[in-house]
Amino acid sequence: MRELVTINREIFEPSQAKISVFDRGFLFGDGVYEVTRSYGKILFQLESHVERLIRSAQSIGMDLGMSRDELMEEIYWAHREANGENAYMRIQISRGTGVIGLDPALSQGTTRVIYLKPLPERNHTHITQGLDIAISDVTRNTKRALDPNIKSGNYLNNILAIVRSKGTPVQEWIMTDSEGRVTEGTTSNIWFVKDGVVVGVPDEADILFGITRQIVRDISLRSKIRLQERFFSPKELLTADEVFITSSTREIMPVKTIDGKLVKVSPGPVSQRLLDDYQTVIKEYCQAAEKRHAWAVGPRVG
Amino acid sequence: MRELVTINREIFEPSQAKISVFDRGFLFGDGVYEVTRSYGKILFQLESHVERLIRSAQSIGMDLGMSRDELMEEIYWAHREANGENAYMRIQISRGTGVIGLDPALSQGTTRVIYLKPLPERNHTHITQGLDIAISDVTRNTKRALDPNIKSGNYLNNILAIVRSKGTPVQEWIMTDSEGRVTEGTTSNIWFVKDGVVVGVPDEADILFGITRQIVRDISLRSKIRLQERFFSPKELLTADEVFITSSTREIMPVKTIDGKLVKVSPGPVSQRLLDDYQTVIKEYCQAAEKRHAWAVGPRVG
Repeated sequence: MRELVTINREIFEPSQAKISVFDRGFLFGDGVYEVTRSYGKILFQLESHVERLIRSAQSIGMDLGMSRDELMEEIYWAHREANGENAYMRIQISRGTGVIGLDPALSQGTTRVIYLKPLPERNHTHITQGLDIAISDVTRNTKRALDPNIKSGNYLNNILAIVRSKGTPVQEWIMTDSEGRVTEGTTSNIWFVKDGVVVGVPDEADILFGITRQIVRDISLRSKIRLQERFFSPKELLTADEVFITSSTREIMPVKTIDGKLVKVSPGPVSQRLLDDYQTVIKEYCQAAEKRHAWAVGPRVG
Repeated sequence: MRELVTINREIFEPSQAKISVFDRGFLFGDGVYEVTRSYGKILFQLESHVERLIRSAQSIGMDLGMSRDELMEEIYWAHREANGENAYMRIQISRGTGVIGLDPALSQGTTRVIYLKPLPERNHTHITQGLDIAISDVTRNTKRALDPNIKSGNYLNNILAIVRSKGTPVQEWIMTDSEGRVTEGTTSNIWFVKDGVVVGVPDEADILFGITRQIVRDISLRSKIRLQERFFSPKELLTADEVFITSSTREIMPVKTIDGKLVKVSPGPVSQRLLDDYQTVIKEYCQAAEKRHAWAVGPRVG
């Protein structure tokens, strides 16, 4: 496949893909984004990602200036132009440019950037042995200040969790809320397993509602795995039987150590079961998408 | 004067000033900025702005890759190239570009953008009669999540305060913290006067330490105006004798109405006194700067 960037439906070499310094995405982080991937030629769960993108835009009062179907079509088009296959895809939409000032009324249009590249192989050791993670002392943004369920261009809270972390290198940093309860990682949701029960963070928490998080819920229901969603402390994570994180690009990833302390089993049997079932969900999704020629939406039917 | 943009010390027409879509400022709002102005040819309080910029950068673990003096010199250079006179100046420094990923270790260098344009006249009615402001129900980011005293590229919290506000148009939106205490406006600090005492928000609050806020402190000390810094509620603002906001571009601005309710006096006598003294501070600063040829720092002495 070909690595490329599209900006408002125009194709650029990555090194030539530029935006104005007056873009509100650059000035204020005033925009929204999604990251997803394709398995083969199929963009996995694209409907869910576009739905969340639209919801994020609505939450910040941003008019996308196009319908859901037009947006879907532009995304499929970009993926086709790149000959997308097992691709990493990042879709970012900012509130365009205009006279500098916080008021969104000053903006004109939007800047839609789609970036496609071959997805790097996931680290085999991480999959088979688990990740090292840390508990950060940076607290997560709150729903009432800047809802983490808005996937926006404001990621400094998450970056601070990385910057402020000391010690040996880890692959994910977990933030708590002001009451010390676990929220989420900088780019993932977190879970643990205790006595056969999968425990996740509830919707009331300061978290992004992950697409993979929803799939874990679906799998648990289908496979009759007991699942609880409730608040918990970092301490409870440390006494768990298994810990894992979920994200669209990392899928389901076991956790081996937390702040240098070994998790009981990594990967544990329940995590492994979910991981296997996740592969089935991917297969089923792709077969159904193949059948309806999902990639060929829009005017340029492949 | 000439409107222009400089990017890493290269001059561009504003319409030609572009950055990569992979700039971390665009991807994550991963950068810091300052807005200041010149009076005549003198960049007012530039030392304080550069000091805060450096502190903001340190707070997010960003290496500016240049000394304070080199940065000062680049700013003076840009202002000279624009024939800056009563100019609006915005300095933004992002954590450069690199492979996409939250970890700042992926970034290479920084992107330094300086934008200069003639400063628009302040609205005369606002100065003489006062602003209309609103209390937003969006809470301010907290120090422990994303400290408002980092002047960063993450301004969605402030933009949400504008977007979520309903009703008649206003010129500033005030945010409270999770305990309902007043913090600051979207681009200003807020104050009130009661029985001759000026009351401001303390350093412990979730606020940016404004440069103009510091000048109000200095003036109060010099002019023996009583000043208190303590937490207060929006209700207390409504029962004040006078209310005003401060910012580098708006200076000291009286407030006429809060959520449509009239403030007792606008502009009140204490606000007017501070406003007059502020003009003296500007004059004194500019005279001192003229004497040491502040604008001519660096290799290209004017």
